[in-house]
Amino acid sequence: MKKQQIADIFSRVREKRPLVHHITNYVTVNDCANITLCAGGAPVMADAVEEAVEMAAIANALVLNIGTLNRVQIESMELAGSMANEQKIPVILDPVGVGATQYRTKTAQRLMDRLDITVLKGNAGEIGVLAGAEANVRGVDSHGLSGDPVCIAQEYAEAAGLTVAISGATDVITDGKHTLLVENGHPMMGSISGTGCMAASVTGVFVAESKDPVLAAAAAFAAFGIAGERSAASARGPGSFKKGLFDELATLSPEDLARAARMKTV
Amino acid sequence: MKKQQIADIFSRVREKRPLVHHITNYVTVNDCANITLCAGGAPVMADAVEEAVEMAAIANALVLNIGTLNRVQIESMELAGSMANEQKIPVILDPVGVGATQYRTKTAQRLMDRLDITVLKGNAGEIGVLAGAEANVRGVDSHGLSGDPVCIAQEYAEAAGLTVAISGATDVITDGKHTLLVENGHPMMGSISGTGCMAASVTGVFVAESKDPVLAAAAAFAAFGIAGERSAASARGPGSFKKGLFDELATLSPEDLARAARMKTV
Amino acid sequence: MKKQQIADIFSRVREKRPLVHHITNYVTVNDCANITLCAGGAPVMADAVEEAVEMAAIANALVLNIGTLNRVQIESMELAGSMANEQKIPVILDPVGVGATQYRTKTAQRLMDRLDITVLKGNAGEIGVLAGAEANVRGVDSHGLSGDPVCIAQEYAEAAGLTVAISGATDVITDGKHTLLVENGHPMMGSISGTGCMAASVTGVFVAESKDPVLAAAAAFAAFGIAGERSAASARGPGSFKKGLFDELATLSPEDLARAARMKTV
Repeated sequence: MKKQQIADIFSRVREKRPLVHHITNYVTVNDCANITLCAGGAPVMADAVEEAVEMAAIANALVLNIGTLNRVQIESMELAGSMANEQKIPVILDPVGVGATQYRTKTAQRLMDRLDITVLKGNAGEIGVLAGAEANVRGVDSHGLSGDPVCIAQEYAEAAGLTVAISGATDVITDGKHTLLVENGHPMMGSISGTGCMAASVTGVFVAESKDPVLAAAAAFAAFGIAGERSAASARGPGSFKKGLFDELATLSPEDLARAARMKTV
Repeated sequence: MKKQQIADIFSRVREKRPLVHHITNYVTVNDCANITLCAGGAPVMADAVEEAVEMAAIANALVLNIGTLNRVQIESMELAGSMANEQKIPVILDPVGVGATQYRTKTAQRLMDRLDITVLKGNAGEIGVLAGAEANVRGVDSHGLSGDPVCIAQEYAEAAGLTVAISGATDVITDGKHTLLVENGHPMMGSISGTGCMAASVTGVFVAESKDPVLAAAAAFAAFGIAGERSAASARGPGSFKKGLFDELATLSPEDLARAARMKTV
Repeated sequence: MKKQQIADIFSRVREKRPLVHHITNYVTVNDCANITLCAGGAPVMADAVEEAVEMAAIANALVLNIGTLNRVQIESMELAGSMANEQKIPVILDPVGVGATQYRTKTAQRLMDRLDITVLKGNAGEIGVLAGAEANVRGVDSHGLSGDPVCIAQEYAEAAGLTVAISGATDVITDGKHTLLVENGHPMMGSISGTGCMAASVTGVFVAESKDPVLAAAAAFAAFGIAGERSAASARGPGSFKKGLFDELATLSPEDLARAARMKTV
């Protein structure tokens, strides 16, 4: 396992403090800003058409999250995404609830068509919908996927030319050629709203400081998962778990991350 | 008191995990999502006109909250509400700050006119305004009601053909024929923003799994109030109180709810 | 130092519970609502063009924050601001991220031109941009200011005819004639999103109950800073720090504030 490289990415993050521009939903936006800070990045949230391009141009990563879409936001996503592509700034797409409504499915597809996405992050149901597999999404929750998520992710990543990151009990991160499984995390992460969105933000922070999106995304998932494990150890319920999640990620060191990461290559 | 029925509704909630679609304000939306999870439901927030109908159609309850209105949101509320009515999905309306501005009063009235509302939940001032009683609303706070809230609620519920739920030191839940008073809760619930909105979300979760909206709403108020009482017992201030509120509701069991509910029929 | 006056303002706040109308960003809006409550005020958030004027008219202070702008919100800010000016209700402007994009810079300038702002609150970079000094803003973070912040603030406050409040390790509050430095606060305040926005809300609460905006804003910064110091003393990380910040401000007494405030005149 690539312990040293993982520690190095996280050290670079903490040193450089990458600016992560978010165009995201209004439900979990505050959690995304705070987890970005805890991970070592600097968050900025700006979705007006008038400034999306300018903000993207100065960012080190761009996170697009379709949790609460509207027409203006889609336009801003396309504008900011194009600028990010031009400037070679990595773009993370979180297709929240894709498959639950046609609007989400069409929008995610459109963003995939028009932009070069660096990392597509979703749960098994969401990725399955985009990959054309038989998947089941209810509201914004995944209710599984027929077929092997690793194979589906690998084939789709290869075909679409991007890194796919599927969150779950075992996270799958792959670009089709290289595949990493991450086993950090805790069931309590499903007891609060926004852990999926936050994972995308942490991914943005890590991918900003690495040329290897598969490893960077896997390191981000490991870091976030370790924070979840540690917080769960002393949480009395979802409220204290959430508080602890921020505390644990902020106090995680690069060496500690490398030591506690449970990652394997397949 | 209906201890067994209350425990049964809550057991069903925990088993079925009803999907509660919210069209709500951007101030307390994250708290609403999290409290829905703690109560045992699955939250989804979607207010785009393009998807409001589709999301409502798959939901088990719809919560409409006018805390931060805009034109698009009102249109989505009407569309989602009509679909919910068609599909016999219960609709909870929280007319936040009605009476404070004409825009809120007109919008709440319009939603009441065009939709079949299952439960109208508000504080005494808000319900008073809609019922045509002499009421006083300042910003989004109730400053009381001339007259007996029980009588006002009963008459209005009967006339409007819905269940009215007034939050307060003693909560009043009535459909005009059956009236329940709930005495759970704690003054610290007023020390944080969003307890009113969260009560509507919990009501949505419970009403989704019962054919008796009066009992279900009363059980929801009791559950949320008990969580408040227990959190207040160890809170040092509003920050720790809020954290504890989520912890306590998430760990409340159906039997525990039935035991600790302080409810009476009038 | 003006210990007694500071205690008096805070006592009045706690007694009167001023209504603070916010037109603000969707990232930290919940934190602003909760910190307003903790400070002793009553928050109301309403940014629809249809109700901005009516809500401003009943408020005791108006807080305008450009963190996530859009066209409608700017119109509401101008409408609400004009009403506040007419009614002599103090207006606090927080020009979040001004200098980072032209849209923010133009909007802040436009609000400054069209409205009488009572207190302009920002970090050194933001105030520097508006004052025409050489300043550096990256995303929504200040990266310093060439020149002495005290002089820049004094000259700009005098020229613009308002109170300037610069947050930092030492806060500078001045109307050009009277200048107060506040040394309360803790570096952990930078570890969470929204402390800048929250400081503007607390300023709104205090300025609502005083005829001396310099002293009131300084008292607000001191109160918020003391809460930060006390929370940091037992925080394990950003999550517990944030929880504690609310607890500490809510339980701070007027006498306690006067005693712990580290303020000096220059």
